[in-house]
Amino acid sequence: MGVFGHKTVSMTAKIRLYVDHPLGDGQTVPLDRDQAHYLFGVMRQQEGADVALFNGRDGEWLAQVTQAGKRGGELTCVRQTRPLQMPPDLWLLFAPIKKARTDFIVEKAAEMGAAKIIPVQTEYTNSERIRQDRLQAHAVEAAEQCGGTYVPEVTDLQRLDRLLADWPSTRRLMFCDEAEAGAARALGAAPRGPWAILIGPEGGFSVTERAKLHGLPFAHVVSLGPRILRADTAAVAALTVWQQALGDWDGPQSD
Amino acid sequence: MGVFGHKTVSMTAKIRLYVDHPLGDGQTVPLDRDQAHYLFGVMRQQEGADVALFNGRDGEWLAQVTQAGKRGGELTCVRQTRPLQMPPDLWLLFAPIKKARTDFIVEKAAEMGAAKIIPVQTEYTNSERIRQDRLQAHAVEAAEQCGGTYVPEVTDLQRLDRLLADWPSTRRLMFCDEAEAGAARALGAAPRGPWAILIGPEGGFSVTERAKLHGLPFAHVVSLGPRILRADTAAVAALTVWQQALGDWDGPQSD
Repeated sequence: MGVFGHKTVSMTAKIRLYVDHPLGDGQTVPLDRDQAHYLFGVMRQQEGADVALFNGRDGEWLAQVTQAGKRGGELTCVRQTRPLQMPPDLWLLFAPIKKARTDFIVEKAAEMGAAKIIPVQTEYTNSERIRQDRLQAHAVEAAEQCGGTYVPEVTDLQRLDRLLADWPSTRRLMFCDEAEAGAARALGAAPRGPWAILIGPEGGFSVTERAKLHGLPFAHVVSLGPRILRADTAAVAALTVWQQALGDWDGPQSD
Repeated sequence: MGVFGHKTVSMTAKIRLYVDHPLGDGQTVPLDRDQAHYLFGVMRQQEGADVALFNGRDGEWLAQVTQAGKRGGELTCVRQTRPLQMPPDLWLLFAPIKKARTDFIVEKAAEMGAAKIIPVQTEYTNSERIRQDRLQAHAVEAAEQCGGTYVPEVTDLQRLDRLLADWPSTRRLMFCDEAEAGAARALGAAPRGPWAILIGPEGGFSVTERAKLHGLPFAHVVSLGPRILRADTAAVAALTVWQQALGDWDGPQSD
């Protein structure tokens, strides 16, 4: 029994590890130096120990340690314990904020089932640089800790205006504008399919950006209630609204 | 224009301060040493400066600095800028987790409009002590930063079994059990009125606790989707589900 978050997950291995390697019956999986240090040094595992592996593609596998060394090691897959559980086709676009809260948004997006996480630069975005590799590592860690079998891709920082100029015509955009009270319930009548959620920057959207966003044919404006939410709170609230109305909270999407 | 979270708030004062003092036309408000240090030392304000004040009871007031000193000072209320905005009668019960995430839950509960925050000790709660004063300060800070005029009370740690034994008969309890997929939408049919949300501990509820919770006549079991959520994520998601279905996201409650 591994315990994550606020509920208990049944599985035989306590340690979950993301690996960038194919998984399958009898498949051997080499460990790099960092993974070996974590598994054998920090977690004190030895040969024969059970580890849960996932790679974001092949579901979750029970594996056994078949070689343990200081600089590497090897695991061998025993059996699949869970199939791949893909999230809905949902992107989360957000303007990076302070480091800890940006990390938090990525972690929460992975937990809440976003398929892709896109940091965007808006007119009022403060930080012009992000560490994409660090944010991707946060998404991996969130998936490891929370029992996920899928890891959302975190892209490099993209300019919002360019992203919207090249927007795929079939993807709808949920744009959270708290000036629009009462619109949140209306999302239930919106069509399913590919979607994105856009969370604004700390400084708000510029007048130009706001006018442009409201005029986009694929944009749906929703409210997140009468209180002002920080961007990280707004991200979780918006993901909740979307997942409940159009996502997989009632089971896998049918279309 | 003060800027908080992901949207812009119109007001004439950039600094918002919580004070435990009556506010009203021409009312003078003494500042203690810490407040004077923050306002005059850290924020470099001088006599005549505008500050927004709230006390959780009298709405938000524009005040001016009428005395500035190293060890104290005085503000004088000019006019009310916003009425008191009470949240719905909603309690958030949660089992304390790691320090940073406990702080986060309190911050998010204040932002999302909980009226009262109750840390509960369950059978599997790790930390037996909390710093109530520190958590209350986090609720105050969240209200200051996010434009709130109300500060939820954070109570001392209470034993869940005792709390449930003395439960007020008119207050319903939303109990988040992720084994119950698909039940979240059903909350829309539940009655309005006093409610509480219960978020479980990292180790999950015990078998006894779970059986007891499911048997309570005032308990409504809801799902937060197919993914495992950390307790802090679950708190924001649960508050979103409740506010959208039964709270004030469509305007103030009518009953």
